[in-house]
Amino acid sequence: MQSVSVVGIGQTKVKEHWDRSLRELAVQAILGAMQDARVDHADALYVGNMLSGELTAQENLGALIADAVGLRGIEALKVEAACGSGGAALRAGYLAIASGEYDVVIVAGAEKLTESSNCYATASLAMAADADYEAIHGISFVALNALLMRRYMHEYDLVPEDFAAFSINAHANAAHNPYAMFPAPITLAQYQRARPVSEPISVMDSAPMGDGAAALVLMPTERLNGNRNRAVKIAASAVATDALALHARRDPLWFGAVELSAKKAYAQAGVTPQEIDLFEVHDAFSIMSVMSLEAAGLAERGRGAYLAREGEIGIQGRVPISTMGGLKARGHPVGATGVYQAVEVVQQLRGEAGKNQVPNAHIGMAQSLGGVAANAVTHIFVN
Amino acid sequence: MQSVSVVGIGQTKVKEHWDRSLRELAVQAILGAMQDARVDHADALYVGNMLSGELTAQENLGALIADAVGLRGIEALKVEAACGSGGAALRAGYLAIASGEYDVVIVAGAEKLTESSNCYATASLAMAADADYEAIHGISFVALNALLMRRYMHEYDLVPEDFAAFSINAHANAAHNPYAMFPAPITLAQYQRARPVSEPISVMDSAPMGDGAAALVLMPTERLNGNRNRAVKIAASAVATDALALHARRDPLWFGAVELSAKKAYAQAGVTPQEIDLFEVHDAFSIMSVMSLEAAGLAERGRGAYLAREGEIGIQGRVPISTMGGLKARGHPVGATGVYQAVEVVQQLRGEAGKNQVPNAHIGMAQSLGGVAANAVTHIFVN
Repeated sequence: MQSVSVVGIGQTKVKEHWDRSLRELAVQAILGAMQDARVDHADALYVGNMLSGELTAQENLGALIADAVGLRGIEALKVEAACGSGGAALRAGYLAIASGEYDVVIVAGAEKLTESSNCYATASLAMAADADYEAIHGISFVALNALLMRRYMHEYDLVPEDFAAFSINAHANAAHNPYAMFPAPITLAQYQRARPVSEPISVMDSAPMGDGAAALVLMPTERLNGNRNRAVKIAASAVATDALALHARRDPLWFGAVELSAKKAYAQAGVTPQEIDLFEVHDAFSIMSVMSLEAAGLAERGRGAYLAREGEIGIQGRVPISTMGGLKARGHPVGATGVYQAVEVVQQLRGEAGKNQVPNAHIGMAQSLGGVAANAVTHIFVN
Repeated sequence: MQSVSVVGIGQTKVKEHWDRSLRELAVQAILGAMQDARVDHADALYVGNMLSGELTAQENLGALIADAVGLRGIEALKVEAACGSGGAALRAGYLAIASGEYDVVIVAGAEKLTESSNCYATASLAMAADADYEAIHGISFVALNALLMRRYMHEYDLVPEDFAAFSINAHANAAHNPYAMFPAPITLAQYQRARPVSEPISVMDSAPMGDGAAALVLMPTERLNGNRNRAVKIAASAVATDALALHARRDPLWFGAVELSAKKAYAQAGVTPQEIDLFEVHDAFSIMSVMSLEAAGLAERGRGAYLAREGEIGIQGRVPISTMGGLKARGHPVGATGVYQAVEVVQQLRGEAGKNQVPNAHIGMAQSLGGVAANAVTHIFVN
């Protein structure tokens, strides 16, 4: 397999885009990435999206977006792994270059969640859970995570405030990200006063639904010419899965797919967890951050929340996470999120993260999860 | 890139499977393919599906099916290109092996269309068209094809009966396929009496909605050991796209994506259209067969219907198509169809097609279309 590099990035602000269609958002992000990469052509496009069918009555996004962006004719497919669709699209793009099939590939994530009622979007997001054995009972996706969080607190004797540092960190970082949906810091008092969504999960533990698109341009590392000095290499690309239904897992408090995909990724990249300079974690809910940190080997089991409480997840900390706001504060347009994460890691490794710049960032990891970590897609980037 | 072979095939009968869930259908097909390939493990699974979200409230099929089939943990993703999703999943599986990433990959197509009302399924299938500029006006997917057929008849001075041979051929072949939804021959009189769906398209010009799943096991050709003498090599894998909206195409009577992807595939395989021994065409509607034959270089422009009328598409003809019944009579579980086509080509190239065996079949082509040929995924197989 040949080495793959990211040579261009693009993104739209995450918000309620009432004036832009899904394809328009995708076009904006892709044209941004192509301009950044200084390419005017691509051989293929892989689109990450979860709910375009349910929420905007549109499938076949690959061909639709390829045409809209002026690339009618090229290979174009959609890849889906629920909320991990963005990471999955990057995985497809990675293989298309690594195989030697193509020289220029675009990976885009696009999602429009706010065109329907919140209620319908919530029902649609539950399609990431097991329809026959979980969602059929009426449980929502946030409620599944609430079950996890409650059990975790019981097992490790924690209270909701122990999770506050995740949300506070994400919002502090989002404050300096012009693409973030909620670019404002929050205080512990605000966290404590936040209204519950599904107890013990409050609004401040939950990533907001938003619309947005992000894009990457990939090329073979060996084909980079002189003027691509901002290229960032993809040192690892790994996917693993778990049962969708929580009750079907041997140990519901352990994200097996996260562990598997992270271990594969570390091995591919030849790095240890301790060498990761920043980690774009899938912080859809605080509990997911905690369990991801543990399963990815970045915190001891049962200690994920302490890592945050002790200030280790900040930009200057030992394991900076959600460095541009994360799902929590940059926003979570589900199928696009994994691509936003990759874009943000590239910003960091290029030294273009502004006030959020992680010092001496050389190795960055992005992890995109589908369902309650039923899919885990891990990419490690190196500059 | 390394050479890729199909070492196992599996399929369920296409019908209204009221007693089986989507995952059960997929498991049945996959276990069949694994048994056929004599493997008890796989490194990855790519699932082709279009409408599991809309019609069965389930996304994240990759992880779901990997777990259900006993392969929890492996890489598993869903690939979507509307009605071409099956071909798209094969494309993803092909790249995963060709790249050198994996040694055993499963490709599965699964779709359950009949669990909802026909009316809702029809509305969902229109998501393969352009939601903002076509479907929003209320036009269904069959009506879009009816516009094409009407224009084609006008342009080339044909009547509906000129298309009858496609349906008659498909049903004749389905009669000997135990997996076919409608395994019974039809007569010209039945074709003429068929009730209209969207004029000039009648029931006998339309593939039926069905439920079903099909699967393939892929391996690197060079890793095949002695007992895999029934392996069939994938000599070409190519995808191309076109505008979704018919009105946005320069020439609506020409399937540009079909031409592009077929030409790429012929070049990869190093064959001419004349060397293709059989062609599993995407005969969702008779007009699609006609236009696919023309754009793939198997008939002169304007002569696709004549090819059928003159008996050249039969098992003994010059260009055998729909050899196991095609979408028309084997049935069209949309996201699974492309995998059924590949399974059927493998049956032919192995010499296991029974009464439908194409004599001296060495080179077979399968083409999976998304939307009105907005995506075209072409694979050429060689034994």
